[in-house]
Amino acid sequence: MAANCLFCKIVKGTIPSMKILETEFSYAFLDIGPLSKGHSLVIPKVHAAKLHEVPDEYLADMLPVAKKIVNALGAENYNILQNNGRIAHQEVDHVHFHIIPKPSASDSEGLVVGWPTKPADKAELQATLAKIQEKL
Amino acid sequence: MAANCLFCKIVKGTIPSMKILETEFSYAFLDIGPLSKGHSLVIPKVHAAKLHEVPDEYLADMLPVAKKIVNALGAENYNILQNNGRIAHQEVDHVHFHIIPKPSASDSEGLVVGWPTKPADKAELQATLAKIQEKL
Repeated sequence: MAANCLFCKIVKGTIPSMKILETEFSYAFLDIGPLSKGHSLVIPKVHAAKLHEVPDEYLADMLPVAKKIVNALGAENYNILQNNGRIAHQEVDHVHFHIIPKPSASDSEGLVVGWPTKPADKAELQATLAKIQEKL
Repeated sequence: MAANCLFCKIVKGTIPSMKILETEFSYAFLDIGPLSKGHSLVIPKVHAAKLHEVPDEYLADMLPVAKKIVNALGAENYNILQNNGRIAHQEVDHVHFHIIPKPSASDSEGLVVGWPTKPADKAELQATLAKIQEKL
């Protein structure tokens, strides 16, 4: 736990939250600045700023927890989003998975997704793949 | 496995892919329409259209696999995104987690996130929370 982390304080209970549930590894609560009704967060009960810093046993627990919440929400359309780094839209430096219901196609509720895809260059993809595999 | 599912065919190997790695439960490959260099997908080796339909043992494996790929990419800033439903930007009806590096703040590469947040009404949040907890 990190002394000055908002989400660590929520896990410890020193800051109140709209708690949905908790497990040995995860804590889930409502986002108080929701993009849509039922917008929830799932966080690990260990301090880590980014996904790649979270121990596997915590990572393994988060999606089953997210699934429970989606089922309780009864959401048919929704986005699961986890941002890493300020330029990637992360605002609190403790890993958090957003569960964001998308009740309609409108840009006024739920997550709005921009997708600047480019034509794929097969040789470049092969080179990228080779680099990744080298570091696995 | 579903006979007409593109991603089931990729898992079976009847359609080629830029495979990164696979485990007992997951299969990971490069997105051939990348938003940025290294844009990768992690999918469960079972057919399920949406996250809440995936058995827990598959869900538990996907984030540790994503973490391995992030580490191999050496990405500092990135988004993890999983879309459910056409209006939530899902294009292939087999659950897939996007790992999307965000190399710069530019809207021309990586995920572009729109965030139509509204002021939170505490009474409404409490009512939403009560409804969720009833269904858990």
